[in-house]
Amino acid sequence: MQGSVARQGRLSPMERKLRVAGGQLGPIQRADSREQVVDRLLALLTEAADLGCELIVFPELALTTFFPRWHVPDLAEFDHFYETEMPNAVTQPLFDEARRRGIGFSLGYALIERADDGTVHRWNVQTLVDTTGEIVATFKKVHIPGHDTFDPERPFQHAERYFFEPSPDGFGVWDAFGARVGMMICNDRRWPETYREMGLQGVELILCGYNTPIHYVPDPSQDELQGFHNKLVMQSGAYQNGTFVVGVAKGGVEEGVASLCESIIVAPSGQILAEATTDGDEVIWADLRLDWCKQYTGTLFDMDYYRRPEVYTRLTTMRGPNG
Amino acid sequence: MQGSVARQGRLSPMERKLRVAGGQLGPIQRADSREQVVDRLLALLTEAADLGCELIVFPELALTTFFPRWHVPDLAEFDHFYETEMPNAVTQPLFDEARRRGIGFSLGYALIERADDGTVHRWNVQTLVDTTGEIVATFKKVHIPGHDTFDPERPFQHAERYFFEPSPDGFGVWDAFGARVGMMICNDRRWPETYREMGLQGVELILCGYNTPIHYVPDPSQDELQGFHNKLVMQSGAYQNGTFVVGVAKGGVEEGVASLCESIIVAPSGQILAEATTDGDEVIWADLRLDWCKQYTGTLFDMDYYRRPEVYTRLTTMRGPNG
Repeated sequence: MQGSVARQGRLSPMERKLRVAGGQLGPIQRADSREQVVDRLLALLTEAADLGCELIVFPELALTTFFPRWHVPDLAEFDHFYETEMPNAVTQPLFDEARRRGIGFSLGYALIERADDGTVHRWNVQTLVDTTGEIVATFKKVHIPGHDTFDPERPFQHAERYFFEPSPDGFGVWDAFGARVGMMICNDRRWPETYREMGLQGVELILCGYNTPIHYVPDPSQDELQGFHNKLVMQSGAYQNGTFVVGVAKGGVEEGVASLCESIIVAPSGQILAEATTDGDEVIWADLRLDWCKQYTGTLFDMDYYRRPEVYTRLTTMRGPNG
Repeated sequence: MQGSVARQGRLSPMERKLRVAGGQLGPIQRADSREQVVDRLLALLTEAADLGCELIVFPELALTTFFPRWHVPDLAEFDHFYETEMPNAVTQPLFDEARRRGIGFSLGYALIERADDGTVHRWNVQTLVDTTGEIVATFKKVHIPGHDTFDPERPFQHAERYFFEPSPDGFGVWDAFGARVGMMICNDRRWPETYREMGLQGVELILCGYNTPIHYVPDPSQDELQGFHNKLVMQSGAYQNGTFVVGVAKGGVEEGVASLCESIIVAPSGQILAEATTDGDEVIWADLRLDWCKQYTGTLFDMDYYRRPEVYTRLTTMRGPNG
């Protein structure tokens, strides 16, 4: 099972290749309209299309400011930050331009769903759109970070657990762009289970948008490590599952809160292929030689041969050390 | 649950501290006797004790050369590379000196067990010994890498799957040295499940010995990345589980095969606290402020609060993508 595998750098005409972009965003202030933001997204999409990219990944909550930094007594006060359908009037130009230029995109936003029985669900989602402007899938964030009540001691809130339900669906993969593609959102990238759930489905490319405040209130000693941690989790997740990862930030100083940029494209080797150098709107891109994945999933990370689920007795029977 | 936690660097007299060492070994050639090796281990242990360390971690298969680099038609031909009991006449001086100096150690070696019914088990193990010279636990390697039959195309074999059974026990933790301590061996460190199984048991310190040939025959493009990968997996495993990790190599050129050194001690932040700078016998050490772990396990990696086992539907129901 450890037969001959292609060496990195030795390209054959038979190999699958995908040119992919990350469309990093600088801050979106609360006063900015969705129309203004979509104009910025269109500029990034156009630049990526001009570069010959087939896919551009946009950040988490890419249509609005990161509103969980505030708390409102009535959750519904912030319903205007959520989309009710996708596409909609404001985002339709993105879908149209994607089809016209033949470039897909992945877009993070807040989604509100109202069922006929009156049930309301609020999700933090990322939608994948193909090169014909059709929706491939909408992924819901699994690992919701932060807190669920107002914390008066914080200079800014991180009340994602107030504003979003966690996904009941977990991590899927989809065949698109000639690859097996999965998605994760922000905090999902810190959890090794995220990558492994997709790795067990043969993922080759994971798309991730994030908003990461640099100041981590519960433990400020982590502030100066935000960039290191961001890379560490995506590089190790890529390596340990033999997959490409595209991680794209909304960063810069948004409503007074400095957030990490450093969008990256990571290879199955864990190496960084491209990295943003600004804290504003910026396109990064790389050519992904998709068969590179097999150099890991077909050798030392051949999971079918080497994994030991029979002795992983705690991964799903326990939530944490307390049970 | 995200209350005030101590900041890194702000030490209080109440904090638990452990001074720990890694005892890296240069090569052990086939002609070297166990007595010669134990003399080298004693020198490292003495140096660590002189430095005030309470524990020294030795590499995987630290009593012999890395014999799975050869293949023998009859497995039993290599039984002389295995210990039949621990301690034994050759290793007793290590236990005696540990007790005399009040320093524990963790030692990797091959162990053969013969049951009364004639069953024979061959394990790749690591034994933890406390400061009184008593055995705390013996851990068996879980993820056995390499191959199980002779491969004529390799310049050297990596036939661990021929020489060792995988552990049926998985990953445990033990309360020792004032900490919650776990063990892993070499290839175990590349699998996120390793750290997580121990993280779910509240591990604070993971001890790891390794032998890692720099030339990876199935995919030589990984050769130049061996050092990067070694650090990547231990740093991410430490960070994602809020634990210290001590990774200790047997490296240098052993029987013509160059092996990675770069022994490291990693903090729960993922930062490297100490790193070997030679490819020979060398002591590295660090002071571990054990409550640093809580700055991660009590905040963004509070697993009881944030993990989502209900949607990890594949981690233990599947071995790999093929089922």
